[in-house]
Amino acid sequence: MTTRLAKGRFFDRDPFAPVQYVYPVEGKLYSVKSPFQKIEVFHSPHFGRMLVLDGVLQLTERDEFFYHEMLAQVPLHTHPHPEKVLIVGGGDGGCLREVLKHASVRQVTLVEIDAEVIKVSQRYFSSLSNGFADPRTTVVIAVGAAFLAENWDRYDVIIVDSTDPVGPAVSLFTDDFFALAARTLGEEGIFVTQSESLHFHSKFVRQVQLSLSACFKFADLYTQAIATYPGNWWTFSIASNKYNPREPCRAVEVPTRYYSEEIHRHCFVPGELRGRIMSGELNW
Amino acid sequence: MTTRLAKGRFFDRDPFAPVQYVYPVEGKLYSVKSPFQKIEVFHSPHFGRMLVLDGVLQLTERDEFFYHEMLAQVPLHTHPHPEKVLIVGGGDGGCLREVLKHASVRQVTLVEIDAEVIKVSQRYFSSLSNGFADPRTTVVIAVGAAFLAENWDRYDVIIVDSTDPVGPAVSLFTDDFFALAARTLGEEGIFVTQSESLHFHSKFVRQVQLSLSACFKFADLYTQAIATYPGNWWTFSIASNKYNPREPCRAVEVPTRYYSEEIHRHCFVPGELRGRIMSGELNW
Repeated sequence: MTTRLAKGRFFDRDPFAPVQYVYPVEGKLYSVKSPFQKIEVFHSPHFGRMLVLDGVLQLTERDEFFYHEMLAQVPLHTHPHPEKVLIVGGGDGGCLREVLKHASVRQVTLVEIDAEVIKVSQRYFSSLSNGFADPRTTVVIAVGAAFLAENWDRYDVIIVDSTDPVGPAVSLFTDDFFALAARTLGEEGIFVTQSESLHFHSKFVRQVQLSLSACFKFADLYTQAIATYPGNWWTFSIASNKYNPREPCRAVEVPTRYYSEEIHRHCFVPGELRGRIMSGELNW
Repeated sequence: MTTRLAKGRFFDRDPFAPVQYVYPVEGKLYSVKSPFQKIEVFHSPHFGRMLVLDGVLQLTERDEFFYHEMLAQVPLHTHPHPEKVLIVGGGDGGCLREVLKHASVRQVTLVEIDAEVIKVSQRYFSSLSNGFADPRTTVVIAVGAAFLAENWDRYDVIIVDSTDPVGPAVSLFTDDFFALAARTLGEEGIFVTQSESLHFHSKFVRQVQLSLSACFKFADLYTQAIATYPGNWWTFSIASNKYNPREPCRAVEVPTRYYSEEIHRHCFVPGELRGRIMSGELNW
């Protein structure tokens, strides 16, 4: 995968999608090759700064709040009193920012494979990366699945903020990984992971839901349309042994731009439709 | 706007979006320049045949059912007994197909500006265009707004299936047009129009909702994620003087791939969020 800046355009090279996105850009602000991937920062007139990993757009300043709020606030509001939170991936800091909004949170461990992503975010994405300076934050540079296998801490919430399930991120979607997460969380814990597009990856979504169902009492699915992820009908797979994630446990007392209690209740895929997805009937 | 077939790729040239979509294609099956626009048909390995007008993708065989079912079935199921239906635009026939599924429908008038679109659909999109042979169908080749201004018939449902609001389609989103539609419908009628993306065109969505509110008792907003329309969080603006469109009037007795009573109830933008959109607070 390569990214070219031809005639002021950035071609998104998502290998997991049957359509490519092209963004008019004003320039490339930064480019570095880490041991894991090529990291680039572009500036788009419409979307602001854009973070690109191995040619695939990860976030834009303009619309990242949809993704990060929905990824983090739904599980955080499903738990009555989250204190210890584990973020796997999420080196840009957007998910961390959302978690740290909660006064109940005493400790956040962010396990990122690539230290360079964090550095780039701290330099170019200040609206996302402030949480790295928070005393409650611990950063671990490690492979998420390996960290979890050797970890003996308990967490209240685990959030997987991964890239597409190709390359290293594949290990974050295995049955073994979900079982490790379930063991790490205990009775009250909440697990969530981004799980790709309902338009383009419905088989993958179904597989993630099935795997989570084998490890947790509740496995459920919510969505948010994200303009800059191909397939766009983005899914989040959430799981828990005690709390039904469709019911927020607490009032929303953190500042948000999009997430609300109403949106929490509305974002879940309605029951019949989820049944049709799980049966394979809606294998579009 | 031009469309190039370079190295087996089709570049979508939506002038109304800050991102362009690029599709791998196996070839261009047809190309013609009508008096109104350039009409092309491509074949995509993933999406099947794709209809392109002036370089902008209008539909794909694979996913058109999301758009056409949601555009047509929501208003049709909001009316207790639709008999006469007017479709403005929709020359591909997809919306017509959905309307004709209803046994109560006795007469459908489809007003399309460009006869060539119908011909191309009849030749290349048989899964959409069968309704043109139905004896209940009348095709009128005319400008939609002009037709409505001179029309004295009454319709139960008016469906506007337009291209983006640039060029000729601008006339389908004016206050005058909505007022004409309201006059044409009478007390029991239902009006619906596609109204672009909540991600990219929230000001436009708000304007359409405001204009409809001035002409109808109920003006409301529902959405469906569409993978092949840039901005993807696609909105449909529906209006009525008698029936609350959030409540379907009838059980679903027509065959559908996606639409259901549950989806009808779920697709509407929840109340608080709609309020935030209308206030301009969520002007992302």
